[in-house]
Amino acid sequence: MKIIIIGATGTIGKHVSAELEKEHEVIKAGSKSGDLLVDISSIESIENFYKEAGAFDALICTAGNAQFGPLAQMKDADFRVGVDSKLMGQVNLVLIGQHYINPKGSFTLTSGALADDPILMGANISAMNGAINGFVKAAAIELEKGVRINAVGPDIVEESTAYYPYFPGHIPVTMSGVTQAYVKSVLGGQTGQIYKVL
Amino acid sequence: MKIIIIGATGTIGKHVSAELEKEHEVIKAGSKSGDLLVDISSIESIENFYKEAGAFDALICTAGNAQFGPLAQMKDADFRVGVDSKLMGQVNLVLIGQHYINPKGSFTLTSGALADDPILMGANISAMNGAINGFVKAAAIELEKGVRINAVGPDIVEESTAYYPYFPGHIPVTMSGVTQAYVKSVLGGQTGQIYKVL
Repeated sequence: MKIIIIGATGTIGKHVSAELEKEHEVIKAGSKSGDLLVDISSIESIENFYKEAGAFDALICTAGNAQFGPLAQMKDADFRVGVDSKLMGQVNLVLIGQHYINPKGSFTLTSGALADDPILMGANISAMNGAINGFVKAAAIELEKGVRINAVGPDIVEESTAYYPYFPGHIPVTMSGVTQAYVKSVLGGQTGQIYKVL
Repeated sequence: MKIIIIGATGTIGKHVSAELEKEHEVIKAGSKSGDLLVDISSIESIENFYKEAGAFDALICTAGNAQFGPLAQMKDADFRVGVDSKLMGQVNLVLIGQHYINPKGSFTLTSGALADDPILMGANISAMNGAINGFVKAAAIELEKGVRINAVGPDIVEESTAYYPYFPGHIPVTMSGVTQAYVKSVLGGQTGQIYKVL
């Protein structure tokens, strides 16, 4: 299976890549390094990326930024950081990628626990995670030729120690647990699922 | 109580206005008609609107557009119809309005059943509804001076007969049921709630 991982060198992506490349062809992509470069905030970059990548069976996105900061100071431009990257970046990977992916292929996006379990300063992230979850459920009933789509929605992961202070009482989830959720999405048969890792 | 209703002449807004103006001062706002005009897709328009409205106790938004159409033909620009109106319109009403609302005031936004129960051609709507739900849960824990925020998430309402064909098997909800969800949000004490009307 030919699997593209966007954000392959990131905290989550490197583990997912390591696991899947044991038995599959993994194309590692990122904004700064990788087999292929892609800026998911640009539709032109995404188009070029898919043309370069060629036909594929699965796309995983573990990339996407959102704005972290207090609501009282948040402005439209702050909120649009998440809109343009974590939301539209991932949505456009699907809207464009649906025309390139192989039949019975799959998309796996990344949302997160904050959609339902917010933290202080996380309003932009919670909104973007909720949007991804809604999009995945809806896109799943329209994708053609057996193409599937799921999201993985992890709580804070154990390697993101720098963020621990912002997640009081959240019990960090293991990298192996998160990785297996992506594996389940790609190699399993379900669609329209939000695999929460809590 | 001084209550602003944006979308006051719309299918839902007119019922909410009629109910609340029995006992409260209701300021009706909309993009084309009302006591005050506001284009929620413009942050300048929202700023001017709040300056004109003066201090208030509750803001209800029943306005906001999203794109309805097949995923296979959907493009970034289509998806951003919902982003700029239903999502950022409502989010900016809160980000800006938090600096104008009276202590112990409330914001009530509108999401919808499609966040969890999608229909064909509704991917943009589902995503925007999910985003509003995530935002409301997160904003609720940060709003200051006792200001509350909730969302009402109705299924298709009985008066939207033109949309019935697109909601097969969905049982339309009554206008009175939907109206009471807004009343509960404004006059009740809860925050961070998604009042589903199914």
